[in-house]
Amino acid sequence: MDTAHRAKLYEQVAERLGDAISAGTLRPGERLPSVRELSTRERVSISTVLQAYLHLESMGLVETRPQSGHYVRRRERPLPAEPQMSRLVTTASPVSVSAMVARMYRAANDPRMVQLGTAAPSLELLPIQRLNRELAALARKEGAKGMAYDMPPGSPELRRQLARRALEWGCALGAEDFITTIGGSEAIHLCLVAVARTGDTIAVESPAYYGTLRAIEALGLKAVEIPSHPRHGMELEALEAVLNKRRVAAVLVVPSFSNPLGSCMPEENRQRLVRMLAERDIALIEDDIYGDLYFGEERPRPCKAFDTEGNVLLCGSFSKSLAPGYRVGWVAPGRYRERVELLKFAQTCATTTLPQLAIARFLQGGGYDRHLRALRRRVATQVARMTEAIVEHFPEGTRVTRPTGGLLLWVELPSQVDALTLQTRALEVGISIAPGPIFSAQGQHYSHFIRLNCGHPWSPRIEAAMSTLGSLARSFA
Amino acid sequence: MDTAHRAKLYEQVAERLGDAISAGTLRPGERLPSVRELSTRERVSISTVLQAYLHLESMGLVETRPQSGHYVRRRERPLPAEPQMSRLVTTASPVSVSAMVARMYRAANDPRMVQLGTAAPSLELLPIQRLNRELAALARKEGAKGMAYDMPPGSPELRRQLARRALEWGCALGAEDFITTIGGSEAIHLCLVAVARTGDTIAVESPAYYGTLRAIEALGLKAVEIPSHPRHGMELEALEAVLNKRRVAAVLVVPSFSNPLGSCMPEENRQRLVRMLAERDIALIEDDIYGDLYFGEERPRPCKAFDTEGNVLLCGSFSKSLAPGYRVGWVAPGRYRERVELLKFAQTCATTTLPQLAIARFLQGGGYDRHLRALRRRVATQVARMTEAIVEHFPEGTRVTRPTGGLLLWVELPSQVDALTLQTRALEVGISIAPGPIFSAQGQHYSHFIRLNCGHPWSPRIEAAMSTLGSLARSFA
Repeated sequence: MDTAHRAKLYEQVAERLGDAISAGTLRPGERLPSVRELSTRERVSISTVLQAYLHLESMGLVETRPQSGHYVRRRERPLPAEPQMSRLVTTASPVSVSAMVARMYRAANDPRMVQLGTAAPSLELLPIQRLNRELAALARKEGAKGMAYDMPPGSPELRRQLARRALEWGCALGAEDFITTIGGSEAIHLCLVAVARTGDTIAVESPAYYGTLRAIEALGLKAVEIPSHPRHGMELEALEAVLNKRRVAAVLVVPSFSNPLGSCMPEENRQRLVRMLAERDIALIEDDIYGDLYFGEERPRPCKAFDTEGNVLLCGSFSKSLAPGYRVGWVAPGRYRERVELLKFAQTCATTTLPQLAIARFLQGGGYDRHLRALRRRVATQVARMTEAIVEHFPEGTRVTRPTGGLLLWVELPSQVDALTLQTRALEVGISIAPGPIFSAQGQHYSHFIRLNCGHPWSPRIEAAMSTLGSLARSFA
Repeated sequence: MDTAHRAKLYEQVAERLGDAISAGTLRPGERLPSVRELSTRERVSISTVLQAYLHLESMGLVETRPQSGHYVRRRERPLPAEPQMSRLVTTASPVSVSAMVARMYRAANDPRMVQLGTAAPSLELLPIQRLNRELAALARKEGAKGMAYDMPPGSPELRRQLARRALEWGCALGAEDFITTIGGSEAIHLCLVAVARTGDTIAVESPAYYGTLRAIEALGLKAVEIPSHPRHGMELEALEAVLNKRRVAAVLVVPSFSNPLGSCMPEENRQRLVRMLAERDIALIEDDIYGDLYFGEERPRPCKAFDTEGNVLLCGSFSKSLAPGYRVGWVAPGRYRERVELLKFAQTCATTTLPQLAIARFLQGGGYDRHLRALRRRVATQVARMTEAIVEHFPEGTRVTRPTGGLLLWVELPSQVDALTLQTRALEVGISIAPGPIFSAQGQHYSHFIRLNCGHPWSPRIEAAMSTLGSLARSFA
């Protein structure tokens, strides 16, 4: 990350300590190393260490006890419980969430808003200069190529890089298996059109990403919402019961760090899901847009890794981890490849040329992997800080997820808090949040839930917004 | 245009003469000015004039008669007739043209092919350096902005420029009336989804652009094909008869230089069409993607200029006149604005940020208007040269359109020529063409028609391709 690379020495020291605190290596109340110890260990000056502690203090992570030293700030209350699993009546419904979504994404264009609504990494965390330098160089050197239509399946350079990465996740895919798209949104949209006809039913997680629900609605499809566990994702027993009862054209899941739950489906469930759908000849649309943002040691293997029938349509994007505004995503549509390619042509004709090439270069040079290593650490810290702020500021009885990847927290507020009213009040004071009802098909569930974007580095501005949000939520008493 | 700006003096002289020949100001057989006359008139040296004549000779526009001077090359045969108007049974059909289209756009990625298939201006005609310079500068200076999502309705800078231009065409539209899209394709796709539900019928011109037919098919809609005149476009009597008989959700027309006919609907027909549909409360989707490429004195006013009810959804793009690979288009959806904006969000989320900003800058600085003036002259010349080549090389009985704008010629070959077989044989020898059947809903019409892209400056390579194509067509005898 540009900012990380330019970070001052004391910030680097502070970040390492902050990570240890977030990871629980250093626990609340624990004494931190003395200034002298840390100075020796980190090979930095005493004043650098003092600056680092001051910085951590300003972030609310550390407290100074006079004559005693520095301590990890003690939580006033323990971490809240996780939200309960959704218990829904699993009927299929036409979807209608549009108007609620509109005011949120409109707020996303307003730089004065504190953006806790749309799921996006802060620009401060992205390698803006380096990627734009690639783009500028390509615009000069490969100008003619950049100006031409890059017809489907899209840039061979980028597809080669995608194939290389897929191999690392356990997917034996070649460049020819990929089609590039306008972000993850287009990939999902194409898959829906490819596998379903109007009136068909798509099984989705509940809660589910509102963009997907919106696409399902626009295409005249129905969504059947499957209860999903905050940690393990879609409940396969519930899914199976639905499949036994009614015709479903496709199942759409976000196995790795689902939106909004942040759940991560265990590998045995992924295998079971792939098998279950292959046996029934039902397509599996796998949205892997958050897959690169794991906090643990290894990237979860996509369901696609267990797909021997070409039955899984794997979708991904660079919007959550690298360059939202470049609009570059991709799909590996398995046996639906030909159909998806033709639909891509009909829908947007081609993907923007130069951004694809710039990303391909960035991947090829190893820049993306280096960036991801730093980004994952930062995002994990941010999720931990946002969780702490919920503990501190939100009303008693609030529950919150414990994601192991992704950018998002799903917050269950006390039942008297109406999320849509909270959204309205928060917008009035310059804070954008995502209200729970947009994550269900007809807006009939999750009326006291909100989703928070943790894409922003912890700052006094975010802390103030979280405090305000907590006060607003308390005012529903 | 970069190339035009860098053109040598003799090329500039040759181009002006070539234009006069194409426009018919200088007619076949007519004697050109003497070398001395032209040298005086153009204020260039004798040797420059000689080079110019040599150049025109190599392009096949001029012949030298010893001791007599230079003459406009005489056509061996008169211009062929225009194609006859389509006479179709106007029933609604589910559409199926996919496979035929696929091999054409795949050929478009192959630089070894002579690209007479897809409709695109040659890169030589585009201001590649200047536009890419804007992009590179923005990537450096506005890096963070370029990296962020630009949520619908899209870049305010670009929408302001669009509003300014629209005013010049007689459309009173403000920046807030526009939504930017991924090229014209997405604009059309969004409009179709906005105004129609599965199973609905869309009235289109016949022949119609295969991309539109493909989108109609993908969305589970039906197309009813309205006979269209090679010069005046959609026959309004035929349309009215259909509207009296059956429910139609929308009419989709390309009034200015339709694809593939190149027809230009007279202004009174535009007014009548707008009135007819407003009275019946049927949406009019207006594809104005070729509108900037008029050969005459003035840009035809879009139907939208006569729309008082917000019933017209006007779509445009910079793909045919400026930057195909940038994927920037737009729609002014009238009273469907809110719905289109939400659909845009669901379909591709946002339009790529930096290309929009670069185009906005280029428009604002006047670069686009200067470029268009030169481009229109070049394209008109190319269309004239391609027409000449058809006269010279194609079999007796061939008919061809006389477009007054756009990039395309629609060619009716003798009835024994099978266009799909011709496409196959042409691809084998490195020439891509668009076969007629892809321009009708089920591929059941236009079996002996082809569409030719005139986006390329005349060159020995294009001449050879046209000669080869003519021989292939003759071989069907």
